[in-house]
Amino acid sequence: MRTVYVNGDYLPENEAKVSIFDRGFLMADGVYEVTSVLGGKLIDFGGHLARLERSLAELDMDKPEGFDDLLEIHRELVRLNGIEEGMIYLQVTRGAPGGRDFAFPDPEVTKPTLVLFTQNKPGLAANPVAKKGIKVISIEDIRWGRRDIKTVQLLYPSMGKMMAKKAGCDDAWMVQDGAVTEGTSNNAYIVKGNKIITRQLSHDILHGITRAAVLRFAQEAQMEVEERAFTIAEAQAADEAFITSASTFVMPVVEIDGAKVGTGAPGNVAARLREIYLDESLKAAV
Amino acid sequence: MRTVYVNGDYLPENEAKVSIFDRGFLMADGVYEVTSVLGGKLIDFGGHLARLERSLAELDMDKPEGFDDLLEIHRELVRLNGIEEGMIYLQVTRGAPGGRDFAFPDPEVTKPTLVLFTQNKPGLAANPVAKKGIKVISIEDIRWGRRDIKTVQLLYPSMGKMMAKKAGCDDAWMVQDGAVTEGTSNNAYIVKGNKIITRQLSHDILHGITRAAVLRFAQEAQMEVEERAFTIAEAQAADEAFITSASTFVMPVVEIDGAKVGTGAPGNVAARLREIYLDESLKAAV
Repeated sequence: MRTVYVNGDYLPENEAKVSIFDRGFLMADGVYEVTSVLGGKLIDFGGHLARLERSLAELDMDKPEGFDDLLEIHRELVRLNGIEEGMIYLQVTRGAPGGRDFAFPDPEVTKPTLVLFTQNKPGLAANPVAKKGIKVISIEDIRWGRRDIKTVQLLYPSMGKMMAKKAGCDDAWMVQDGAVTEGTSNNAYIVKGNKIITRQLSHDILHGITRAAVLRFAQEAQMEVEERAFTIAEAQAADEAFITSASTFVMPVVEIDGAKVGTGAPGNVAARLREIYLDESLKAAV
Repeated sequence: MRTVYVNGDYLPENEAKVSIFDRGFLMADGVYEVTSVLGGKLIDFGGHLARLERSLAELDMDKPEGFDDLLEIHRELVRLNGIEEGMIYLQVTRGAPGGRDFAFPDPEVTKPTLVLFTQNKPGLAANPVAKKGIKVISIEDIRWGRRDIKTVQLLYPSMGKMMAKKAGCDDAWMVQDGAVTEGTSNNAYIVKGNKIITRQLSHDILHGITRAAVLRFAQEAQMEVEERAFTIAEAQAADEAFITSASTFVMPVVEIDGAKVGTGAPGNVAARLREIYLDESLKAAV
């Protein structure tokens, strides 16, 4: 049985509970991060911690008790659960006041909730799906306007994932005003004439930690990067397409709305970026 | 101490907990209803139950164990907690699978979570605020596109409530493409030349149970009702403005973005509708 972390305690997963008055449960008033583990070490931990801090600040949410020990807590969960490859999920909510009110509770009285748990995924780095790529459908992006804050308001991405599954695909790319924003839990890219194109940062998309690292590695490898919006038609006509996220790293997209991208097989740019990302991230893992 | 209901059990509120893996907590994958209690009886219970059923269906979520006994559970909570005036909050989530995945869990394995609790509010019907009215600010409506489904994705309404408080006001009206959608937890109305104007039903607003009842009573009282969008400028220039919700019933709005509505005092139409609504709802309470 997994050992998880809830507000200072390491507990068996079946005893890990939060109050029904927790604002994460009643109002989606919470933010999260997912950090990958490779070789028993944390990938891009600093990036995830910095984004968590930003998410909290954007929502006027206090740092939880234990914030300064997050690296240690992550490592302890890795150790207790013997994780070689997998993910650590972390969630902070505005805590559990005695009742339910739209107004934020007094932060002097109601302290944030901090929850972490591991997901064991042996073979995460050598994921065979990376050799054949994934298929995506496009759906309308009807999420709220602050997707740069990594909140737990994940109902629509979850619905999008189900729409993809029903269509026999792996994921959905969301489209707003004719242009792709991102995948259900990943950033979206196309490659055309050796140029890597991905939507610019704004309130419309998540500021991916893996995105930032991959773009940095691409530029260091002398690849050209253009940050701008693109359409589904442009993506279908691209040489390659791929996604990035903390748990899929760099993953080729070989079909969009039934149309093959390029040859219909994973492309060289995505493969090379995946290799560089895994190499460099492992070197920097903590 | 309050007695609350969690998945079949009546529990003291401090023992009322859900798993950290509950999709309501991790992904805002849940819906809710709030039913008022007046004179120890439930107001508009049938309407709330019907809307709950619709919300569940829209999200492909199974009815929770206990769905057929909801009237009884509401009544038992009223009895156990001695509620004369107040609210019963009800939430259903897609349940707690063993882990976290964007894809919905198998409904044969993971059963929905059902939580109910009371909020004791003596003096709810005779709320003195109805005699002086509330002040609202306008804010941009950046919520997701399916506000007709009563999900727990309430972070932005909660932020809006805080923006209102910071501006010395009571609530915020949300504006999209120049027109008012609704308040943070209520429907919005204006009155101009004896005509009651409120936004038409669509995916853009909650299909208020109190809204439906109030419009029905208005028409029965020979008042003219027009369902269409209106702007903040139009509202500021109206004779009256008001909101409706299950817990505020009909509540006059006397100021919008610092501009007095009409005389700056609650209007006759709102007062009369509040009276009719309370009278008729009490008669039909169960």
